[in-house]
Amino acid sequence: MARRLVVVGADAAGMSAAHQALRTARRTGCDLEVVAVELSTHTSYSACGLPYWVAGDVGGPDDLVARTAEEHRRAGIDLRLRTEAVDLDLDRGTVTVRGHEGEERIGFDDVLLATGAADIRPDWSCGMPGVLPLRTMDDGAAWQSLLDGVTGVVPKRALVVGGGYIGVEAAESFARRGLETTLVTRGVEPLSSSLDPSMGALVRQALEKAGITVITGTEVDGLDHGPHGQVGAACLGGEEHDVDVVAVAVGVRARVGLATGAGLPVGAHGGLVPDDRQRLADGVWAAGDCCEVWDRVLGQHWFTPLATHATKAGRVAGTNLGGGSARFAGSVGTAITRTGDADVARTGLLPAWAAKVGLDADVVTIDSTTTAGYMPQARPMTVQVLGERGTGRLLGGQLVGGSGTGKRVDVLAMGLWAGLTVDDVAAADLAYAPPFSSTLDPVQVACRKLAERL
Amino acid sequence: MARRLVVVGADAAGMSAAHQALRTARRTGCDLEVVAVELSTHTSYSACGLPYWVAGDVGGPDDLVARTAEEHRRAGIDLRLRTEAVDLDLDRGTVTVRGHEGEERIGFDDVLLATGAADIRPDWSCGMPGVLPLRTMDDGAAWQSLLDGVTGVVPKRALVVGGGYIGVEAAESFARRGLETTLVTRGVEPLSSSLDPSMGALVRQALEKAGITVITGTEVDGLDHGPHGQVGAACLGGEEHDVDVVAVAVGVRARVGLATGAGLPVGAHGGLVPDDRQRLADGVWAAGDCCEVWDRVLGQHWFTPLATHATKAGRVAGTNLGGGSARFAGSVGTAITRTGDADVARTGLLPAWAAKVGLDADVVTIDSTTTAGYMPQARPMTVQVLGERGTGRLLGGQLVGGSGTGKRVDVLAMGLWAGLTVDDVAAADLAYAPPFSSTLDPVQVACRKLAERL
Repeated sequence: MARRLVVVGADAAGMSAAHQALRTARRTGCDLEVVAVELSTHTSYSACGLPYWVAGDVGGPDDLVARTAEEHRRAGIDLRLRTEAVDLDLDRGTVTVRGHEGEERIGFDDVLLATGAADIRPDWSCGMPGVLPLRTMDDGAAWQSLLDGVTGVVPKRALVVGGGYIGVEAAESFARRGLETTLVTRGVEPLSSSLDPSMGALVRQALEKAGITVITGTEVDGLDHGPHGQVGAACLGGEEHDVDVVAVAVGVRARVGLATGAGLPVGAHGGLVPDDRQRLADGVWAAGDCCEVWDRVLGQHWFTPLATHATKAGRVAGTNLGGGSARFAGSVGTAITRTGDADVARTGLLPAWAAKVGLDADVVTIDSTTTAGYMPQARPMTVQVLGERGTGRLLGGQLVGGSGTGKRVDVLAMGLWAGLTVDDVAAADLAYAPPFSSTLDPVQVACRKLAERL
Repeated sequence: MARRLVVVGADAAGMSAAHQALRTARRTGCDLEVVAVELSTHTSYSACGLPYWVAGDVGGPDDLVARTAEEHRRAGIDLRLRTEAVDLDLDRGTVTVRGHEGEERIGFDDVLLATGAADIRPDWSCGMPGVLPLRTMDDGAAWQSLLDGVTGVVPKRALVVGGGYIGVEAAESFARRGLETTLVTRGVEPLSSSLDPSMGALVRQALEKAGITVITGTEVDGLDHGPHGQVGAACLGGEEHDVDVVAVAVGVRARVGLATGAGLPVGAHGGLVPDDRQRLADGVWAAGDCCEVWDRVLGQHWFTPLATHATKAGRVAGTNLGGGSARFAGSVGTAITRTGDADVARTGLLPAWAAKVGLDADVVTIDSTTTAGYMPQARPMTVQVLGERGTGRLLGGQLVGGSGTGKRVDVLAMGLWAGLTVDDVAAADLAYAPPFSSTLDPVQVACRKLAERL
């Protein structure tokens, strides 16, 4: 009899795992059956692409789907959409699911929890028409309808609540779509949980240059209805602002109810904490945004709900579930976005975090250009690098600047990945030609200056 | 009495060394005097920027000068332009120089040879008006005059001889300046000594798309005069082609006459071979294009005359000459250029080289896009990676594609620098957002596919 794997959640982590498990099983000769249950009607789509759909860069939802339900089924996965996993019984080895045909108990040999993350919904955001998150395909479709004016009113003023990546990207989407847009964040600057404030200030400038009003250090006190029943105003730090739509992007938390209901523990940051094979308990596996991720620089687990980790961890789980052997190598905290005409990227620790975890660190920030300074396409670029005194170890870095800035963070990410010193990075043989860089890449100039201080 | 350092050659390597020596000496308390002699009238300029001056991207030669002679002198360097070093006497510790005030013998405690490289000038290229290299500031100025028509004729047809980086960049400059341009190379494709032929074919396509005629596998048999005494035709593989100007870019060799005249040895590739402190013999140091460079992947010295190595090695020499301690960490063979709308980059070994040095290697080439495929700015990108069977060690990689392709080579360069396996690179935490990459960066997709084969 075939071994049965039940995958709960059919997005990045779950479906990477399902396909990789089947692929590996074919190689190892393991007789495997895969059932995947998914609450929504969408599978394997790029949630990161939603802001670009809202902005009008991407034609429609189909463009964002990496693999359709039909493609998953053709690959041999028993995929059940609009199906909620309501109970996990580890003693019996069953998942109880509720779908359009009622409730069913599915037995498993292994279960993979890929239940993702859920939006944090502040009280003021609940039940008010015109107030939505922007994190799922259904959210994206709802925003399209709202912005197209299917409710009878075409909104003109957007408020985005939250200064994280989704908030910043949503604000830009609305502005590019022609809405008068305000971003409000309780942080001292946008992306304050990701960037040093000095770098966050550059992001604020980029947002403002893109026509977005940025209000920092402020929370939403409440919302008021407008004349049509939709949201009409927001109270921000005691001040009333007229708004037609509100995007809520104040963060997510790991969706772990099914796991905790079965008595499985969560980590310090509220996520599941599988081992590096993605195994949580006997026959129980987990991957994706419902999990914490091992941070190689911090040396501890951290809640980093990103597609990159989800697909990699899902694949690792799949390999192991198919009878192979793989380990998830963890994260170094890399992230990137584009805001207006600024690339924004980061990896590793922030200066403030280093102090918190007891590392003796020093930081250097330089202003440079994306190409040789004399080239017409040269744009300003700011680079910050962080290293450890004594050892010289690279601890992190951030970049904000024009086109060509963002993916330079990968040099620092690779340096962190390999455990290099800032001196190593400064000495590395990176690519130089005038359309791409100064002779010594600015990332290396920053590392060299830092090396002289450590 | 101050210790005297004589620097021969006042470009990237020489002047990096001179400044770093003075800086280090101030720190170490070493009493140092620096004399620098330079044959031309230019110091510390970006030779790599010359094609962009010819193309009209860069306003004038001043833009290409990183530091003027006056700035060097203000930093305390006794800089002598239009001064040729004609003899090096190691027994006496003197350099004989010939300048506008006649000959002089300068005593030294240390001498740094930074004499650079010289163009290879085939017989057919000598003495024919309208036939020039494009490698020095003086060449650049001569090309400006020629293309502006100061000889009375504005040239319309350019022939570029040589399919290396300078040849490819020169061809594009001429084409962008409106000349009917032909590139001829004896290689099977452009950049054949740098790229796998399959990748070189993409460069040829980019050149052709930019309006350049590319003739491969062909040498110049000879040139003929035109009606005005200038070059008028070129015989290429037995066929006569009308041309008005010819750029000669068939390569360079290390300029080592001064060194060999003093009995110093050269390496297998014709360059000086200093140790990793850039020391060649007692009191004799060398850096820059006159030297071979330690290739960490090949495990041998190689002739890689690039500005990146010159400035780094010069700085290492300067640190040691100023009483500090530094070592040059070598090269992994990274290079980059832009051709038409294609970024072209490479690092490490080519498949053909791996075979030659006895490595058992395998290669994977993938076609991908520069951003998430659904973004409007997505452009095709081809990635080739090479790894060693058994160990899984990354050996090299090449990329050709649209904007955003080129600097991705730095991920592979960092992988080579740190001695990572292709599996390590595939697992690394690189930056992803739709405007920058697919979820797993295409460089990692290629590494993952290769890892499965090794």
